[in-house]
Parts: sequence; structure tokens; C-alpha cells
Amino acid sequence: VLVYDRLVAPELVDEAPEDALRIAREPLEQEQINELLVGYGRAGLDVVRLKGGDPYVFGRGGEEALALAAARVEFEVIAGVSSLTAVPAAAGIPLTHRGLASQATIVTGHDAPLDYAALAQPAGTLVVFMGLGRLAEIAAGLLANGRDPATPAAVIASGTTDRQAVVTAPLAEITAAAAELESPALIVVGDVVGLAGTLEAAKPKSTLTITS
Amino acid sequence: VLVYDRLVAPELVDEAPEDALRIAREPLEQEQINELLVGYGRAGLDVVRLKGGDPYVFGRGGEEALALAAARVEFEVIAGVSSLTAVPAAAGIPLTHRGLASQATIVTGHDAPLDYAALAQPAGTLVVFMGLGRLAEIAAGLLANGRDPATPAAVIASGTTDRQAVVTAPLAEITAAAAELESPALIVVGDVVGLAGTLEAAKPKSTLTITS
Repeated sequence: VLVYDRLVAPELVDEAPEDALRIAREPLEQEQINELLVGYGRAGLDVVRLKGGDPYVFGRGGEEALALAAARVEFEVIAGVSSLTAVPAAAGIPLTHRGLASQATIVTGHDAPLDYAALAQPAGTLVVFMGLGRLAEIAAGLLANGRDPATPAAVIASGTTDRQAVVTAPLAEITAAAAELESPALIVVGDVVGLAGTLEAAKPKSTLTITS
Repeated sequence: VLVYDRLVAPELVDEAPEDALRIAREPLEQEQINELLVGYGRAGLDVVRLKGGDPYVFGRGGEEALALAAARVEFEVIAGVSSLTAVPAAAGIPLTHRGLASQATIVTGHDAPLDYAALAQPAGTLVVFMGLGRLAEIAAGLLANGRDPATPAAVIASGTTDRQAVVTAPLAEITAAAAELESPALIVVGDVVGLAGTLEAAKPKSTLTITS
């Protein structure tokens, strides 16, 4: 049994054996997914829950895992390449860099309004998952709480894929600059974004990069 | 040319072609590594810089990349499985979990003393890279700034390897509990650590887990 997310690469779904039962996650509620995993697991089938992002970073993998644990169904979590690190890297953006950022904070736009007073502190890099739809609010919230309008910001859409599109702009202008981008997207705010131009320019791979 | 870190799995180093020049990173200063990469790159050799952690998360990959960019040597950063997400996952700890943590902050123990006043806020999960040697100071700093002494904390040593060892304890007791662990280790502080026992228990793989 393969239960997979929309964001999973189709090549990975194709890796399932021909006789595997393939179940798309999207029409299901979280509770239904948990029940499916538990039900098929209890029936003794080999079940793979193939997630389109980190299971344990805003991925609700913990909820699925707890449902399995409560039902005494054994499972193992196998970490993949994380969008948290791979997507900024693909855009030439280190999460930390000596002299520019010594820490990083990760939030999700689903939780907006966020604690902008705390997140506006310039100590490090801010990474927002699933925040493109609320980019205007997030940028305004950070600016209203004192974050420098000139702070470099980036939106990376479909990071690491053929469709990757990157927009960088000062925080005060990022919403307008990224208006044409579509989800899934990662927002990165902080001085490390200023390195993107230099590091991207030295890449041999051709990627669609829009810099404003 | 393969320039590799001590923490890299030997199986990966063995993947290099027989006639590759293998260079261990450890005796070298950062500036020397940069020079090697630039020198061999300019000479037209295929150079792999195989890092034992995320290049762009406290990995100084940004510095190496900037040196290459300044020398106009083309390069590509290929993200691997990140210790930031894989190591907590291997210990049954989600970085975020609905109702327990809606954000995560990543720092390095090398920067200690840290901004404990800011990091003691209970909003999310705190992940400390390379902090085992300063665990006593870090725990004391968080507690002195109001973090609840009962906050679950974990130290995960050699995470995801055969030698993985996990200690969990309330923050006030984590330093004593983890006294026998050795680097490399990741420290995780936050309510999500409380899930480790439940999620670990349901794992089929046998891992050395010490829980105090």
C-alpha cells in the first residue's frame, strides 16, 4: 500500500510494485489517513506513507506516528532530503553564515498571524513554510515590529525542481516582487539571502531565476 | 579530487574512483580548504567536497562557495539528508507537532554564550548543533531565563548511525543524564521531546536508546 502526497515526485510513486494499492492523500482528512495506515498496518500489509515534505517539520508525521503507536503498529520514519535545507541551498542561500546569521527559525504561514514581535529580531534567518498566500501579512508584520525594510528576502517556488523560480527583493518589496509565484514556496528572510546572487551565478546548472 | 570530513561515512569515501586524490579535511584550516578547492577547480579537475553535515547549516559551505564564486570556479551544492531533520526523527522527535511546537529555532553551541533570554521563550523547539561540550552552560542559561525546568530535553549522539545513543530528561537534569554521551551530538529542547518515548517504542529497528 502506498499513500502519497500530491507534492511527491511521480517517479517515486512509480517505484511502487505494480500490484501495490496506490492511494492519493489529497482528498482525505488527516483522521482518515491515520485510520488507513492503522488499518492496513494491522492487516499485515507493507504500507509506505510517502510524504511530499519532511514528516516531522510541519508535516503531521507525528500525528500519523502517534496513531500507529497507539494501535501498536510498528513503523519506521525514514528521513529524506529536507526542503528546509535543500530548497534554500538550491537558490544559493545558506541558512547560516558566519557574520550574517548564527541561527535560523522555522515557522509555517498556516499559523499566521505569527508572533511578529519575536520573529522580527534580526538575530538570524527566518524560514516560512507554506506562507506564500500570506506573504503580504507576514512581511507587514515583520516590518511593523521593526525589521529593517532593506532586509534581503526571497521566495523560492517549486525549489529543486525543473520549475524552480526564485525572487529576491528587500523585505519591503518582496510581496510585490513575488506576486507571480505559485505554491509550493518557501520564504526566507535575512542577510543570508544577500549571498544568493553571488552563489547562484557560479552554478553550472541552468535554473529559472528571477531576481528583482 | 575528494575533500572529505571526518564525520562522513567511510562507505561514501570509498565511492570515489580508485585514482581519485583523497584529502581528509581535518588537519586543514578553512582558508586552506578554500584554496585547495579553488586550486583544483581552476586546474580543471573534478572536485567533490563531501561534507559531514549540511553545507549550509553551520557547515561553512557558504564560505567555500563564496571562495569558488570569487575565483569564478563553477560549482553546484547538492543537498543530502540533513542531520537537522533526520537525527531528531531517528530519535522519535518531530521538530514541530500540532499543539506542542509550532516553530523551531536552530543554533550552534560554538556560539555560546547564546542569547538565552530569547531562546528561553517556550514558543517552539530549540535545536543546538555541536553543543554537547557546553550543555551545562546552555541548560543553565535557559533555566536562568525562565524556561520551565520540566521542559523535556534530549541529547542524541551519533544520530542515525549504529552507535546512536539517545538520552531524554527534564531540562534541569539533562546535563547529568547525558554525561556519558560523546560528540557528535544534537541537543533538542521542547515539548516535542516528550513524544520520543511513544514514537521510539513503536519502531521495529533496534537502536541503542538510553532514557533516564
